[in-house]
Amino acid sequence: MRLKLLVSYDGSSFAGWQSQPGGNTVQDTLEGIIAKIHGTRVVVHGSGRTDAGVHALGQCAHIDVPGSRMTTVEWQRALNAGLPPAIRIMKASCAPADFHARFSAKGKVYRYVIWNGPVLPPLEVDRAWQIPRKLDRSALEAAAKEFLGTHDFAAFSANRGKVEENTRRTIRSIRVRTEGRRISMTFEGDGFLYKMVRMLSAAIVRTAQGHESLESVREKLTNPKAVKFHHVAPAGGLYLVRVIY
Amino acid sequence: MRLKLLVSYDGSSFAGWQSQPGGNTVQDTLEGIIAKIHGTRVVVHGSGRTDAGVHALGQCAHIDVPGSRMTTVEWQRALNAGLPPAIRIMKASCAPADFHARFSAKGKVYRYVIWNGPVLPPLEVDRAWQIPRKLDRSALEAAAKEFLGTHDFAAFSANRGKVEENTRRTIRSIRVRTEGRRISMTFEGDGFLYKMVRMLSAAIVRTAQGHESLESVREKLTNPKAVKFHHVAPAGGLYLVRVIY
Repeated sequence: MRLKLLVSYDGSSFAGWQSQPGGNTVQDTLEGIIAKIHGTRVVVHGSGRTDAGVHALGQCAHIDVPGSRMTTVEWQRALNAGLPPAIRIMKASCAPADFHARFSAKGKVYRYVIWNGPVLPPLEVDRAWQIPRKLDRSALEAAAKEFLGTHDFAAFSANRGKVEENTRRTIRSIRVRTEGRRISMTFEGDGFLYKMVRMLSAAIVRTAQGHESLESVREKLTNPKAVKFHHVAPAGGLYLVRVIY
Repeated sequence: MRLKLLVSYDGSSFAGWQSQPGGNTVQDTLEGIIAKIHGTRVVVHGSGRTDAGVHALGQCAHIDVPGSRMTTVEWQRALNAGLPPAIRIMKASCAPADFHARFSAKGKVYRYVIWNGPVLPPLEVDRAWQIPRKLDRSALEAAAKEFLGTHDFAAFSANRGKVEENTRRTIRSIRVRTEGRRISMTFEGDGFLYKMVRMLSAAIVRTAQGHESLESVREKLTNPKAVKFHHVAPAGGLYLVRVIY
């Protein structure tokens, strides 16, 4: 049976999602527990990687396991019993054989959280990007608007060693929400390039601060290979909220 | 000069507020940093203790320091530079000589946070009390109502070794707020006995769950010495929000 897992994790405890040699990653931890339950090692296919420090409220993954022995609820309980509290299976369900956590994804929702104040409260450590000076909400919204729609986002992504074939992506919405000193920006799109949400967040903030002009942002979207953007917001402020299928 | 400090801390990193031998407490940590800045050890007077695991958004404390050498802003910066990120001075201000963090307090605001769902998300670990089965909000509010006003709360406090002279306290409000699976109960009162907010939170939850009747709660308030309440909600769900002066 193909098991679909809704996975939440506190990214500050791990070296990212993706398996790596000797790496304390979420994928490695999950595969280790599954091997204990199941007897043999199976690959956990995630919807995509998240970097060290990035959190997930709703990462999605699938695994293939024998269907007869355990129900989905039993799988969820067994996994949560073995996993550290920093990783939880929020839901386990049966998926059709052609479901693939990565290739079936129709979109993703990410949230970037800013603490806009002179002192970062202890409960926000590793969970928000602290920006001391007051940001103007309408300036943030104006900057965010530039990224809506379909663009070649090559200028707003980090090179991962290989050339991405297709760097066109569609951002459906960016919602800016303020709650006291906390500002969150929620991005929904058909997909995001490597480090793209953190680079867009940095670009929106820098534009609102006046360090970047709307024109220079537009230029990077129209001539993506000519002018790269070089700022990346800290990993701890980023949350993978949901994968859309 | 008497310096008034607004202190925030992540309680999961400390053995509570109050200084203890060899103890990794918030007060000890603060006094250690002040001694480094100031040259000699001064006592940090808090508005009251918080237990191990209890968080503070706005604990209040005062210290006496020579007024001439450093401004309040310089004190705040020096303290935050030396403190671990799990403790922050959110504000430092000059207080009159007769101000006392504990004795001048006119009231306190505490919040108790519940995660009402079958699986505790990793980002809520040590920050909320997980209750798997759905709680009814109006039942919580009905139970909370019983505690409003002035009562002898002796039945809802833990014995700290000494007899509290006066166990009468006034609760001005208890606001229940739900946000998805998160439920918060915010208590405002003229003061709270040892473990009182955690015991009231447990009582409200147990009453809403039907494990306790409104009558038995009333009885414990009218005959506080006769029948003790024996449940204490976990420390990680409790936040000292504000001290009122």
